[in-house]
Amino acid sequence: MTDFTLVLGGARSGKSRLAEARILAMPRKGEPVYIATAQAFDDEMTARIAAHRAQREGAGWHTVEAPLALAEALENAPPTASILIDCLTLWLSNHLLAGSDLPAEGARLAQAIAAHPAPLVAVANEVGLGIVPDNPLARRFRDEAGRLNQQLAAQAERVILVTAGLPLALKGSL
Amino acid sequence: MTDFTLVLGGARSGKSRLAEARILAMPRKGEPVYIATAQAFDDEMTARIAAHRAQREGAGWHTVEAPLALAEALENAPPTASILIDCLTLWLSNHLLAGSDLPAEGARLAQAIAAHPAPLVAVANEVGLGIVPDNPLARRFRDEAGRLNQQLAAQAERVILVTAGLPLALKGSL
Amino acid sequence: MTDFTLVLGGARSGKSRLAEARILAMPRKGEPVYIATAQAFDDEMTARIAAHRAQREGAGWHTVEAPLALAEALENAPPTASILIDCLTLWLSNHLLAGSDLPAEGARLAQAIAAHPAPLVAVANEVGLGIVPDNPLARRFRDEAGRLNQQLAAQAERVILVTAGLPLALKGSL
Repeated sequence: MTDFTLVLGGARSGKSRLAEARILAMPRKGEPVYIATAQAFDDEMTARIAAHRAQREGAGWHTVEAPLALAEALENAPPTASILIDCLTLWLSNHLLAGSDLPAEGARLAQAIAAHPAPLVAVANEVGLGIVPDNPLARRFRDEAGRLNQQLAAQAERVILVTAGLPLALKGSL
Repeated sequence: MTDFTLVLGGARSGKSRLAEARILAMPRKGEPVYIATAQAFDDEMTARIAAHRAQREGAGWHTVEAPLALAEALENAPPTASILIDCLTLWLSNHLLAGSDLPAEGARLAQAIAAHPAPLVAVANEVGLGIVPDNPLARRFRDEAGRLNQQLAAQAERVILVTAGLPLALKGSL
Repeated sequence: MTDFTLVLGGARSGKSRLAEARILAMPRKGEPVYIATAQAFDDEMTARIAAHRAQREGAGWHTVEAPLALAEALENAPPTASILIDCLTLWLSNHLLAGSDLPAEGARLAQAIAAHPAPLVAVANEVGLGIVPDNPLARRFRDEAGRLNQQLAAQAERVILVTAGLPLALKGSL
């Protein structure tokens, strides 16, 4: 049986920190696995990603980079490892830009999450609470991000909305 | 006495589905009435609206289209019918583009909602949680949408915020 | 000991009205102090700010304008006065445009809030729940606003999220 927590929040809401703290507070077997979906497009971002990675590894995480192959990364993780995915919305954005079949990718991801036997926490952005964007790609991204959040929230045991670093349980309990 | 529920949420938050499910779960007399406020501006949208309408009518709804004359549609609905309005924010946007007197339209709508004797659920978008838009019309729309949501929330028995398909009671109970 | 409430909300969410009502409902010594951070850039805004000020002073508030020097305004307020700051996000935006050292300003503000002995309510915008803005300055503002909200929420006794005029306690109780 899976134990899946979805952590939603806006930009700089503290969602990643809260998700990391949850994983570190859980009893666990071996190193927790941090699956990072960010992609470096320039030197500044490469440096920033490397710095985050070094900081996490100092704190005992094993890092896996999966800008696209997230389901595979989950399938290849040790079955006893607690996993943090940060974040689903960047992964979705990477697939959108790659022209992937989004419903197929979403279904495969949902299945890989359901199949992981140890605790799993995934972070996602809530992006639908502003004005309709002018840009058609931004509109499509917003729709797809909302759909993915709904799909994963339906399957999660726990959904937490983070605002200004503070958690609110939308499903299950904190 | 009226029984008015306001369902708020962002884009693709699952607010319409939740609102439909609430109406269908209520005891009711006769067909529920679905008041659609979307306006078709091109062939693709005409086709999409027709498809949604056929799907709803198969599920037992009577559909009324009211991109602007929403208060009249409420006044003309059978007094015993449960009503779903989807959505107030499109209706507001239609009136803004039509150059209508928004406070007068808001007051008339509030009165028509208060006068309907059977359960009524209205869906609205929350659009004020992003960055201030550059576009002056978008800023005005954002302000007017916030004002309308406040006005109707004050008169509602129940206000529900939907995030990733999950309801949160802001007023009354789920 | 301080009594600090942070009121968060989107545009036209009713957050300022709720914050004013909280201050006016508290037992207090002397006039409450309203610290306004808005800056007038044109005649229309000058007139609007003057009208709000006259309205508030009629209702018994003492108004202080502090588009930048907010910590000083707090330090100079009578120690027994209840204070409303409206709003932190405009103050942050003013400092961002002025090229200030934001972490230093944030630290100084946090200290001035902690040092005020009477009740203090501060209003801030939640701006991180839309699509990533195209504009780099808007992205930076969004990040800084999120950081400031997290910092002040951590130090507040009470954090309230306002949607459509309705409060939700994120920390402490209403």
